[in-house]
Amino acid sequence: MTEHRPERTEEVPGTQEPSEIDGVVIRPAGEQLTAAVLSVGREILLGDITDTNATWLSGRLRGAGIDVRHHHAAADDLDELVEVVRWLSRQVHVIVVGGGLGPTSDDLTRDAVARAAGLELHHHDDLEEAIRQRFADLGRPSMPSANLRQARIPAGAMPLQPIGTAPGFALTMPETDDVGATRVYALPGVPWELKEMFVGDVEPEVGVLAGGHATVTRVVHAVGKGESDIAAEVEPRLAGRDDVELSFLARGQEVQVRIMITADDADAAREASQPVLEEVIGALGPAVAGIDDEELEDTVLRLLGDAGQTVATAESATAGDIAARLGKVPGASHGLVGGVAVYATEAKQDLLGVAPEVLEKHGPVAEETTRELARGAKERFGADWGIGVTGVVGPGKKNDLEVGTVFWALAHPDGEVEVHGRQVPGDRELVIARLGSAALDLLRRRLQED
Amino acid sequence: MTEHRPERTEEVPGTQEPSEIDGVVIRPAGEQLTAAVLSVGREILLGDITDTNATWLSGRLRGAGIDVRHHHAAADDLDELVEVVRWLSRQVHVIVVGGGLGPTSDDLTRDAVARAAGLELHHHDDLEEAIRQRFADLGRPSMPSANLRQARIPAGAMPLQPIGTAPGFALTMPETDDVGATRVYALPGVPWELKEMFVGDVEPEVGVLAGGHATVTRVVHAVGKGESDIAAEVEPRLAGRDDVELSFLARGQEVQVRIMITADDADAAREASQPVLEEVIGALGPAVAGIDDEELEDTVLRLLGDAGQTVATAESATAGDIAARLGKVPGASHGLVGGVAVYATEAKQDLLGVAPEVLEKHGPVAEETTRELARGAKERFGADWGIGVTGVVGPGKKNDLEVGTVFWALAHPDGEVEVHGRQVPGDRELVIARLGSAALDLLRRRLQED
Repeated sequence: MTEHRPERTEEVPGTQEPSEIDGVVIRPAGEQLTAAVLSVGREILLGDITDTNATWLSGRLRGAGIDVRHHHAAADDLDELVEVVRWLSRQVHVIVVGGGLGPTSDDLTRDAVARAAGLELHHHDDLEEAIRQRFADLGRPSMPSANLRQARIPAGAMPLQPIGTAPGFALTMPETDDVGATRVYALPGVPWELKEMFVGDVEPEVGVLAGGHATVTRVVHAVGKGESDIAAEVEPRLAGRDDVELSFLARGQEVQVRIMITADDADAAREASQPVLEEVIGALGPAVAGIDDEELEDTVLRLLGDAGQTVATAESATAGDIAARLGKVPGASHGLVGGVAVYATEAKQDLLGVAPEVLEKHGPVAEETTRELARGAKERFGADWGIGVTGVVGPGKKNDLEVGTVFWALAHPDGEVEVHGRQVPGDRELVIARLGSAALDLLRRRLQED
Repeated sequence: MTEHRPERTEEVPGTQEPSEIDGVVIRPAGEQLTAAVLSVGREILLGDITDTNATWLSGRLRGAGIDVRHHHAAADDLDELVEVVRWLSRQVHVIVVGGGLGPTSDDLTRDAVARAAGLELHHHDDLEEAIRQRFADLGRPSMPSANLRQARIPAGAMPLQPIGTAPGFALTMPETDDVGATRVYALPGVPWELKEMFVGDVEPEVGVLAGGHATVTRVVHAVGKGESDIAAEVEPRLAGRDDVELSFLARGQEVQVRIMITADDADAAREASQPVLEEVIGALGPAVAGIDDEELEDTVLRLLGDAGQTVATAESATAGDIAARLGKVPGASHGLVGGVAVYATEAKQDLLGVAPEVLEKHGPVAEETTRELARGAKERFGADWGIGVTGVVGPGKKNDLEVGTVFWALAHPDGEVEVHGRQVPGDRELVIARLGSAALDLLRRRLQED
């Protein structure tokens, strides 16, 4: 272990024994395993693409109980990459590299890791064969000679079989003054290849290196309250729970309460998280719109399915976005009958039977009009519930109403229609998203009350 | 200039003279200005949020003619941050830091930059006053004492006035063995504050440091062809143009051809880009769906506006997503009359007058049914054009049709209806997006032919 590496000796289960690979200590006893994510590719530095691989890898590494200390993105430049790999190897126990494993002369991850580690590249016959086979499997012409480059990995590295056509590799860097005894995993940059190779080849090994413990993150999605109100309600309920790490993340349409717990293994962590999750749900009451992967749209469709009921929409300001959001959930057809996007005023009359007097008296953005839309949606589609929305989404006022003036209405199975209105902040897209969430959240609350 | 910094001496206009600030050379003569983006905050390393600030900053820096060599994200850890700032200062001329300028003890950017540079923090009365004023402007109670911390910046740094409540600063690091004579800009991490401070305070200065030249990026959005076909058509037309940098970026629904040209100033770069843009447009012909910021939806609405025409949709598989995509464009109401999301089969009959025989004979996903939907949308909404779509978006087959089987139809003003079908790859969301783009692109092509 080099002297450069910062000490991290928080008490984490399973870290009392060191972790070794082939007799080399990767993580000394008592330390939590640390990692860096290195993304290779000029398009990230040009701002053409956002590095979502780093986000995904970080979440997975955290789930394996690993402390991610650095993200780095560098261009396809050999000297720079060598320098970055060496520097990172002095900071962390594990480096996960994404990208730079293709067949062109711009693909330099193999060369950079080899040079940083002071190793040669070795050709692997079995990798060449695997690449040839991948070309055959994909029905492509025989492997171009450029791809031979992909069969070369640093001496002593373990090959990781290609998912697409690019093999990866895992290597423990031999420790020197410049380089830490770091375990490097080189994965292709194409997101689905990176994910599959990580899950298949990297995750099991780093889980063991981490000491076998695991961190579970539970997420409570809250709608209808601000971040600071939510924090004020949740934090006192978990005071003194040093084993629980809480964070609050405001998105456009919701606030996520994120609960992190580390334990000896994934099952134990999950079990320990359950009472904490319930505590948070209890604190937030009806503001809870979903748990973990279940977001508002999923919850609404699940509740509709449980009740054997359906919904239809009549959308002015959102132009079909509410129906489309529901339609993106697999299996939506059990709960969603359909919707009408009524942009032109005449369409409100013709398709939904909104009375011309209502439109004339109240205008297209008004409580009464929204009520009629919800009623019309329910009736015309023969659904149990009907959602209606109107609003001024900008740019610019409409009929003297400010941007962000929105109404949403819900027609109940018994024929009752309730209408709500408020002023929401944000630009056109955010107003559309928030109005849609307000309407879906109203339906969610009523379904949960039933 | 430290010896560590890699040489970059490509011939770029305006780099013959060095760039100095207060007599310190930031960029030596003949070098292109290089930069790194450093994002500070644990939530990035946890994988809770994706670092979109780095993407945005990179695009802006490139526009100012600056070569971004590194992105780095680090946690709120003083030792690590000091180490990262020092390392980056040896690699590049300019570092733009985002985040870590808040009022809590976790906000360490001020301390880290000061310590990396070997400087003290100095309290600025005028910054304290500015922060107090921001609290008053926002109607919040008087400034908490914690915020006093935000009025302290490294000795000799230039304060950047707060946009929210966090001031930033600009500092030239004094050169030592460990540290390059690098210009550091520290900005708040909240995206809109970061953007406003960058545009107001940083961009003008780095533009001068870069040597006054500018890079312009033009984007041609192409729909209906694959990346390699597009490259094969465009590249030969620009062979020998060493001053033009081309890149191809495949997104879910389109391929972006990105053209980069550097010249003495933004006007000259833009002027030089125009004939290249036209060359690319000429090469791609009707596949061009938009230019620069104009995407497919914008183009469709612009062309509808030019023709004084309208469109309505009848959407099965996409559940309103096509209408919603149009509805998100400001001013959409001039071209979009409305749409119907018809998820349940009955809705297709009742609302759109699709004949029961057609549905019975061909099923809900079929050429004939799609044709009837397009016709129904046009007629029921009284629009000039009608779009109809059906498809199997998954998960799982439907009526023995594979996931990705999609049809789209367009009813023309003269009553003609054309229908197209194909098999598209991807998961549920991607199939929905691609089907919607196929339909919108068909309308775009017909509008451009008229």
